[in-house]
Amino acid sequence: MADYQAPIEDMRFLLHDVFALPDQWARMPALEDMSGDLADAILEEGGKVCAQVFAPINRSGDEEGCQWQDGQVTTPTGFREAWRTFAEAGWVGLGGVPDFGGQGAPKGLTVLFEEMQYATNSSLALYSVLTAGACLTLASHGSEALKTRFLPPMYEGRWTGTMCLTEPHAGTDLGMIRTRAEPLDDNRYAITGTKIFITGGDHDLTENIVHLVLAKLPDAPAGPKGISLFVVPKVQVGDDGSLADANAVSCGSIEHKMGIKASSTAVLNFDGAVGYLVGEPHKGLGYMFTMMNYERLSIGLQGTGQADWSYQQALAYATDRVQSRAADPALRSGNTADSILVHPDVRRMLLTQKAWVEGGRALGVYLGSQLDLAKYSSDSNEQAKAAGRVALLTPVAKAFFTDRGMDCTVLAQQVLGGHGYVREWGLEQAVRDVRIAQIYEGTNGIQAMDLIGRKVLQNRGEWLHAFCADMRKDLSALDACWAGHGDQLVQVLQTLEERVDAWLDAKDPNLAGTQAYNLMELMGHVCYGWLWLRMASSKSASAEKKATAEFYFQWLWPQTDTLLRRMRVGSESLMADIL
Amino acid sequence: MADYQAPIEDMRFLLHDVFALPDQWARMPALEDMSGDLADAILEEGGKVCAQVFAPINRSGDEEGCQWQDGQVTTPTGFREAWRTFAEAGWVGLGGVPDFGGQGAPKGLTVLFEEMQYATNSSLALYSVLTAGACLTLASHGSEALKTRFLPPMYEGRWTGTMCLTEPHAGTDLGMIRTRAEPLDDNRYAITGTKIFITGGDHDLTENIVHLVLAKLPDAPAGPKGISLFVVPKVQVGDDGSLADANAVSCGSIEHKMGIKASSTAVLNFDGAVGYLVGEPHKGLGYMFTMMNYERLSIGLQGTGQADWSYQQALAYATDRVQSRAADPALRSGNTADSILVHPDVRRMLLTQKAWVEGGRALGVYLGSQLDLAKYSSDSNEQAKAAGRVALLTPVAKAFFTDRGMDCTVLAQQVLGGHGYVREWGLEQAVRDVRIAQIYEGTNGIQAMDLIGRKVLQNRGEWLHAFCADMRKDLSALDACWAGHGDQLVQVLQTLEERVDAWLDAKDPNLAGTQAYNLMELMGHVCYGWLWLRMASSKSASAEKKATAEFYFQWLWPQTDTLLRRMRVGSESLMADIL
Repeated sequence: MADYQAPIEDMRFLLHDVFALPDQWARMPALEDMSGDLADAILEEGGKVCAQVFAPINRSGDEEGCQWQDGQVTTPTGFREAWRTFAEAGWVGLGGVPDFGGQGAPKGLTVLFEEMQYATNSSLALYSVLTAGACLTLASHGSEALKTRFLPPMYEGRWTGTMCLTEPHAGTDLGMIRTRAEPLDDNRYAITGTKIFITGGDHDLTENIVHLVLAKLPDAPAGPKGISLFVVPKVQVGDDGSLADANAVSCGSIEHKMGIKASSTAVLNFDGAVGYLVGEPHKGLGYMFTMMNYERLSIGLQGTGQADWSYQQALAYATDRVQSRAADPALRSGNTADSILVHPDVRRMLLTQKAWVEGGRALGVYLGSQLDLAKYSSDSNEQAKAAGRVALLTPVAKAFFTDRGMDCTVLAQQVLGGHGYVREWGLEQAVRDVRIAQIYEGTNGIQAMDLIGRKVLQNRGEWLHAFCADMRKDLSALDACWAGHGDQLVQVLQTLEERVDAWLDAKDPNLAGTQAYNLMELMGHVCYGWLWLRMASSKSASAEKKATAEFYFQWLWPQTDTLLRRMRVGSESLMADIL
Repeated sequence: MADYQAPIEDMRFLLHDVFALPDQWARMPALEDMSGDLADAILEEGGKVCAQVFAPINRSGDEEGCQWQDGQVTTPTGFREAWRTFAEAGWVGLGGVPDFGGQGAPKGLTVLFEEMQYATNSSLALYSVLTAGACLTLASHGSEALKTRFLPPMYEGRWTGTMCLTEPHAGTDLGMIRTRAEPLDDNRYAITGTKIFITGGDHDLTENIVHLVLAKLPDAPAGPKGISLFVVPKVQVGDDGSLADANAVSCGSIEHKMGIKASSTAVLNFDGAVGYLVGEPHKGLGYMFTMMNYERLSIGLQGTGQADWSYQQALAYATDRVQSRAADPALRSGNTADSILVHPDVRRMLLTQKAWVEGGRALGVYLGSQLDLAKYSSDSNEQAKAAGRVALLTPVAKAFFTDRGMDCTVLAQQVLGGHGYVREWGLEQAVRDVRIAQIYEGTNGIQAMDLIGRKVLQNRGEWLHAFCADMRKDLSALDACWAGHGDQLVQVLQTLEERVDAWLDAKDPNLAGTQAYNLMELMGHVCYGWLWLRMASSKSASAEKKATAEFYFQWLWPQTDTLLRRMRVGSESLMADIL
């Protein structure tokens, strides 16, 4: 297994040269302390902690897995120590609110750190990103009392966070949940119900776990508008923040899964557990979307991160592995066989991975920067525009990054041949681990439905058209050498917008569902294509970057032909009564 | 987990209505005893043995896996008994030569039985199909003495067979093997060397294992033309067929793999083991291709079989799972949520699986029928034409079926959401098990290279053009309602042939490698498209079959747009010096 190389150079290229984020940060008081140099130092140190603390226990964590016994979950050997090292260095609170002990780093930077965590150990990363997402939700919607009590220990990594949504009969359809909350006193409630598939729902990394739980109050309206959000700590917390008695929440079992085996996936039984209402009654699903949107982008980054790790392994293997002569005499070594890097079909697989990874990384940083603008910009127009962009692109990032993550890990495994299928090289684990990313936080099909429904058709394409207009502006200013690809992209944008406009007033109730996945995939390509052109036309673009852009347009962009054709079909063949 | 339903009705439709194989069999003396009724009975009984003997130990076999201790491999609980039941009913020799105890069933039929074996238990199926392939190789190239000694107990399933090619430094590039064969006496040789990744290389199912081993004689020329083929039994065999002393072959370890855990993948150490030369010296690689081609089609069937099993599971789950209301009021039940079968995006995933499975099954039967013609036809023109077709389509079947097998199992898993990722539903095992099929028997990249090189460019497109001409003839006779799709296919055939002709005299040594995968994928689509039209336009095609054909052309066929565009690119962007 090759050592993980944190892709610092590519990350710096995006931060400084492509998106000029230090300039953006300097404009916003909340981020003005983040200089380009400081950001670079954070990436360097973050890359080190991932390579030195996360990576070494990734495979052993998979082999050993989490264990459940008598209601207690034990994480694999080394995870407690790794977590402590990571937490004590302040990494859990990197993006947190400074007033409560967070580091206040911009999202445009932390996305890159999240990517590296997933690259090196997705199981361990999940404990961290769920804690960060729970903190964000509490910081956004919780009372001062809740924030004061819960945020500091979570930012310090002394406590972790979870999101408790799914129940056995209610996954996608949260309106059906049955967990109930009975008022006790002083904003305290007794929470009763069963939640399943709770990532990090129990473990031994920390002294406490803070569950964010969706439940229904006695007077709740039916459906999604009757859901409230509660903070339910595993161990009760005194007013001074000290730990008190165990709360009435128990871990009934953990799942036996295909991968991310060092991440516990728990069944949690709440049996009158004490919880605290977050914000107002019945508005919990909206609050939880703060966390879900955070995690959706984050899970997208899992796709990119694991794709990058796998790509690094496949490239190292292909460089070393000697098999068959080059077809091209000019590439032949003096030996009877050459490195398999000489074979075009091996290069096709490697370059596909490289182009997906670097395109995804760019979109991740762009989306992170829009999250910063939406949160911190003092210009309300800019803020609103960024918020629309975030809403539009979050489902694309989650679904497209993770589908590409699966493609890339499978391709990397393929480069290794039989060695990719056996455990020792780690590629088969990468495939098993990344596979969950297409499923959790809302399956990729659900992301596609969210995109076409709430994010596009519901506002009559407003966010989409605004985004397309911005991309067109960029594309009109391209250097001559990239203008040909730019023109192609502009044509696709036009067809995309025409199709969406045609769907706005369609009578067929099944049309949105029919076209959801096509739209999500085309949006992914449009974003990657646009960003590949932004990267390639950057003044400081390397020859490598330009050549990868050219590869992208020759080999991957042609998938838009298929998508555009499919975007003309109606729902008839899907809805035919043959299943 | 839903019970496996052997897809007998669809299989009969192919045998009788689409390909009229009983008529073909009646024309060939070797197959004239195989009536349509007998074939149907074999499918019925074969489906039962798969559902009742193979399926029940598929998941437990994965959980327990093969164990290696002190040089001995133990298969999981129940495998010995299942094998005995299977073997004693004569299934191992179903396609074998009657003179030596085989059943003589045509390949056009046995492909369907193989598909069902893989669908229900790929690990167990491998012991069977490797034995059948080894028998075919011995029957084709071995002396009467070898056939008499080895074939009967192998057809009876008392002994199994293996293929020993790969060495640690030599996988794709077999010219580099180092295993050597020293002459002893009487056509006996001492075989010394190490082979890895040997499927079924050791196990406890049978009293003996017959290894077909590639090795080099002392006077061997360098490279692939210096390879000979030997039969090396695990236990030596007396002239009367009785078992004698253990041979000097030992199992050094077995691999820990992503899947097919109940199939042992062995490191075999040959330490002067007694072996028998098959055929002539230095011609072993050619003989081994008899086995490799058999196994390549067979592994393709693994893709189709596992895709079908997964599809059946996903369809059963989607029918039962209730989540969210239908977008279409006409589809709403009286309840607060509907079966997820009402959602177009779920149907997209299911229909994609269905269309790939049934298209693949049709191509498998077609290819099986061509193998029968190539072997048994009394018309030498027909025989030669079929042999060319088999050569051309075998790499397509291996690679395209298994890529689609991976797509389908992943899509089926996706339909189940989180339940697809946990072990109890079996979908995650299907993904892990089918993944190997893209790798072993020559990676799919190697299949694509074989197609474009040996099978297309080397004979200047002769086999390809002949096949295209036959397809065109079929397409010109289509009913009016399918003529539109037929015209599209004819246009794609024309571009395909033009591209291939343009490549024939290309100077770029990297062009074939660049275009290999594109060509393989386009050939897959061309075959499926052609066969979907043959099926849909069959007089007895069901409404379901016709609707699935329509789905195929609306949703999957558009991938040809992408492929045709990629087929215009040169090697420059792949060969750019950036890896």
